[in-house]
Amino acid sequence: MAANYAYNTRDFKFILKEWLPMEEIFSYDKYKDYYSKDDLDMLIDQVHKMVAEVIAPTNDDGEKTPVYFENGKVYVPKSFKDLYKYVQENGWGTSNIDEEAEGTLPFTLLNVVNEMINAANPAFNPYLVLTTGAAGLIQTYGDEHHKKMFLPKMMDGTWSGTMCLTEPTAGSDVGDILSKAYPTDDPRIYKIKGSKIFITGGDGDHVENIIHLYLARIEGAKPGTKGISLFIVPKYWVNEDGSLEPNDVETTGVEHKLGLKGSATAALSCGDNNGCRGWLLGSYDPETGEGQGMAQMFQMMNEERLNTGMFALSVAANAYWNAAAYCKERIQGRLMTNPKAGRTQIINHEDVKRMLLLNKATTEACRAIILKACYFIDVAHHDPDPERRKWASGKVECLTPIAKAYPSDEAWTLIGESIQAYGGYGYCEEYPVAQAARDCKIYSIWEGTNFIQSMDLVGRKWTMAKGAVFAAFLKDIEDFLNANRGAAAGFDKEFANLEKALASYREIQKTIAGYMAAGQAGLIPAYSRRILTATGQLYGGYCLLEQALIAKKRADELGTDHYDYNFYNGKVLSARYYLRNVVPNVWAILELVQDGDTSVIEAHPDIFQY
Amino acid sequence: MAANYAYNTRDFKFILKEWLPMEEIFSYDKYKDYYSKDDLDMLIDQVHKMVAEVIAPTNDDGEKTPVYFENGKVYVPKSFKDLYKYVQENGWGTSNIDEEAEGTLPFTLLNVVNEMINAANPAFNPYLVLTTGAAGLIQTYGDEHHKKMFLPKMMDGTWSGTMCLTEPTAGSDVGDILSKAYPTDDPRIYKIKGSKIFITGGDGDHVENIIHLYLARIEGAKPGTKGISLFIVPKYWVNEDGSLEPNDVETTGVEHKLGLKGSATAALSCGDNNGCRGWLLGSYDPETGEGQGMAQMFQMMNEERLNTGMFALSVAANAYWNAAAYCKERIQGRLMTNPKAGRTQIINHEDVKRMLLLNKATTEACRAIILKACYFIDVAHHDPDPERRKWASGKVECLTPIAKAYPSDEAWTLIGESIQAYGGYGYCEEYPVAQAARDCKIYSIWEGTNFIQSMDLVGRKWTMAKGAVFAAFLKDIEDFLNANRGAAAGFDKEFANLEKALASYREIQKTIAGYMAAGQAGLIPAYSRRILTATGQLYGGYCLLEQALIAKKRADELGTDHYDYNFYNGKVLSARYYLRNVVPNVWAILELVQDGDTSVIEAHPDIFQY
Repeated sequence: MAANYAYNTRDFKFILKEWLPMEEIFSYDKYKDYYSKDDLDMLIDQVHKMVAEVIAPTNDDGEKTPVYFENGKVYVPKSFKDLYKYVQENGWGTSNIDEEAEGTLPFTLLNVVNEMINAANPAFNPYLVLTTGAAGLIQTYGDEHHKKMFLPKMMDGTWSGTMCLTEPTAGSDVGDILSKAYPTDDPRIYKIKGSKIFITGGDGDHVENIIHLYLARIEGAKPGTKGISLFIVPKYWVNEDGSLEPNDVETTGVEHKLGLKGSATAALSCGDNNGCRGWLLGSYDPETGEGQGMAQMFQMMNEERLNTGMFALSVAANAYWNAAAYCKERIQGRLMTNPKAGRTQIINHEDVKRMLLLNKATTEACRAIILKACYFIDVAHHDPDPERRKWASGKVECLTPIAKAYPSDEAWTLIGESIQAYGGYGYCEEYPVAQAARDCKIYSIWEGTNFIQSMDLVGRKWTMAKGAVFAAFLKDIEDFLNANRGAAAGFDKEFANLEKALASYREIQKTIAGYMAAGQAGLIPAYSRRILTATGQLYGGYCLLEQALIAKKRADELGTDHYDYNFYNGKVLSARYYLRNVVPNVWAILELVQDGDTSVIEAHPDIFQY
Repeated sequence: MAANYAYNTRDFKFILKEWLPMEEIFSYDKYKDYYSKDDLDMLIDQVHKMVAEVIAPTNDDGEKTPVYFENGKVYVPKSFKDLYKYVQENGWGTSNIDEEAEGTLPFTLLNVVNEMINAANPAFNPYLVLTTGAAGLIQTYGDEHHKKMFLPKMMDGTWSGTMCLTEPTAGSDVGDILSKAYPTDDPRIYKIKGSKIFITGGDGDHVENIIHLYLARIEGAKPGTKGISLFIVPKYWVNEDGSLEPNDVETTGVEHKLGLKGSATAALSCGDNNGCRGWLLGSYDPETGEGQGMAQMFQMMNEERLNTGMFALSVAANAYWNAAAYCKERIQGRLMTNPKAGRTQIINHEDVKRMLLLNKATTEACRAIILKACYFIDVAHHDPDPERRKWASGKVECLTPIAKAYPSDEAWTLIGESIQAYGGYGYCEEYPVAQAARDCKIYSIWEGTNFIQSMDLVGRKWTMAKGAVFAAFLKDIEDFLNANRGAAAGFDKEFANLEKALASYREIQKTIAGYMAAGQAGLIPAYSRRILTATGQLYGGYCLLEQALIAKKRADELGTDHYDYNFYNGKVLSARYYLRNVVPNVWAILELVQDGDTSVIEAHPDIFQY
């Protein structure tokens, strides 16, 4: 019962066929022979069916037979092994990044596939996604030898991959890692020594070999992030003839986590017996002591951060759809406004509808933000015009911290409300929302905590190109307002709210600039997470209102009797609820920022013993 | 490691000795020979020590050996059995409600004791509290025979008690219960038939007998809540000689819950073999078909609702103190504002301090609200002046839904931030915050969901005595503002915000009255939960500001070098943070209420399939 993939694909189809200009992506050389808008329904339906039939049934295994560690080995839930192979072999995973292959999925579509996979089994998906991330690094920075040695088996599900950043004393501050790399006779190969923790998919019996993409500091390199290099450190060393031998990578344990119990979060110890080797990716300059590792990691970070936001969205959306289905069945109470009509399904109660509409509107806002960012990534990767690629890259930079942090912050609240909609049953593990709450909480911490995202937004993205990139990002909202304000009958209040939110947001920026100029830099980290939330709400409101204009037109054309009317009318109500109940938070946050309360800054650590 | 009772008692002492006029309570006949302010430190320290040494070590048992059901029997974690007996025998539990006994704890102090007990083992405490609730009903409504038969063994820990309301088809709407009661030859005794679910402490091997306080409808009684009667239904029937025999009360299962895993949540089936008997409490009028059951249950409901809010507070506060202690040890990163000073404990980072200060301020606001409500309960129960008892009862009525729902809503967010403060370790069950998140989520559902609380507030409490009671409740805040506005140097902005919040709150009331008058009653349940949150923030802000005035004076007297300075200064900062970062939400909610968005009301249930 706990495993319940309740996804509905209608919003995907709307976004890809009616909202985002996907024809542009499908016109690129790489995709033009393989994709068109006409095929999207079939593709999405096919994936949805595969996910429901093949992936969803494995969710319970992660819960009932969690990952365990015994005699130095890690065992993953049994069904995950075949499933991993199945998904990779059938082209729903890592092979989509293969630059040599034809017919691979655009990033936008891959994200749609992944949202469904993650919703169906959030503990399984990280094995896939981390492998894709690791293979992506090898593809971008490896030489032909590396690519030939590692990529085919990572893409066909024989091997998997990880990213090894965190160490016991270095989490958010990667620059403080202690892992070291020592030169060998072969300038491409280094001896590796160090410990890593929190390594997702760090070990497991589901694959023959695990290819770790490992950050370490070459002996003599600079301290901090600049001195870090990136290595391919396989669990089993791959000889030239393809045979494997142990590479002195030992697993020392797995974490017992609140959720994602089928996902192995391993601690690794490398080189305890001086036998661990790694391939250096790119080059190292002994003159400057500078490595390329952090820059290499960061190139792929945008996509991993988007992924994390999408995971949070998928878990929250699946919880919402489960709650909605339950509330439609469960009979309890009478309507406040019409008690004589007798007992009613709880979905008719105003507060239940409020919880569901908050969930529906916010998950749709998150999906819009994420898929729009994916669209920009596709443009940035494949548009023939370098100016347009640059333009799209700017949007990606602005959207990435928002798309990672906003959904992963909101998921906790939204799932809390989905539990509340169930009542007491929501607290029972027989129903799927309890697991959703447990699974989702890591996403606000993964891939750079949401505080790190918020400082990336305010400290880096606001100021890129002297602020021009972010100003253009906000200008898109202004352009939308100017183009549609008059023509959008029935949305006066919604337009007014978006306009007020945009103006308020610009005031937030001015206020923060003023604090900076006045030497009150401490106020920036004190407010940055709230500012990030405001950014998500502003941009989410913009996306939903744009969608609502399309949907309203369609709903009017179709009429209330049409089978699709409820979908389009629902899009209108999502936008209305969000613009009128969530977006006003943007100017509420402006007021807090303008107050400039310094209590956080003044607080001595010792007050927190009380 | 997961079991970590990290409570600090300083705020209790401040509240009881410097904020609430406890001397008034201690002057009542019942308490005057037993309590004085001078003894409070010793009492609190003694309980804190007992809780840390005796109760906290059992927390892990609830997690590692959860309640289980086998061959019709329920087994509770082994250590809970001795612990239950110990706490009851030593006078920290049910015996405090004994009206015949001397030296029992005033409700305010009992609540303080209970907050610590619940923090140390949230899965154990319900066994105590439900027994106290059940014993309270017998004490108030039972005859001498019932009292003699049940109370001594319920008070000394030999037996326990429950409240049996919920049935599979009747949760929030108790009036729809199907349990029936049939007369026997003895007019005091009825045959009981029915099923109950979600019965906390409903079964277990920790006691000899379980005394269920059971709602059922006597054959021929009215439908709805008016036809319900309350019965004492023991698991084992108690013969006049004290011997026990089976009473046809069968346990059919226990729930597997997100949290509180050591707490038995049982499903019961009574009278399957026509052998279940119960004692009627009070009387039943066959002429009108009306029972007294709901009114009887409701008399004790205020206290149970307060308890639930306090449980949420205690779990959130314990998570906060654990997070603070971790953040003081954990070294990571450099300060944004002074990176050259090198690596630092994360408690020095602004955003970590913000998360901790939000937790500190909000838990202190909740504690203030709850203990103030307890103080009013003590006055309402024991003041010799009937007018003053009535006055205090009015305050209790107003505060009850706030004290239940506000802490139990906020706990989820607060604990989410405590997990975030830990980073990845917060997601691991080896640390205590993951359990806190799992434990706390039920409190927003127990004892009437928070939506029910919000409608109790807006629908009943606002309108009691034509609004006079709630107007007087708000007038207290106005009086505080008028009495202190001028004299409180350094709190200008905080006073201005409280004043604005009070005015905004009154506007919320007017706006809702307008909707009611205009036939837009559906807007009330659509906004009621947000209004309840605003009420908690308004009253919490008032309490914290009042406390801050006392604390500021003390801090100035003591000077920064005094060992207690950080406590008093922390109280000032709590108030400042709360008044300037949380209380502004009251007028943000006013703006939403004034908008009167009807999207929730218009939403057809079918839009939620998308």
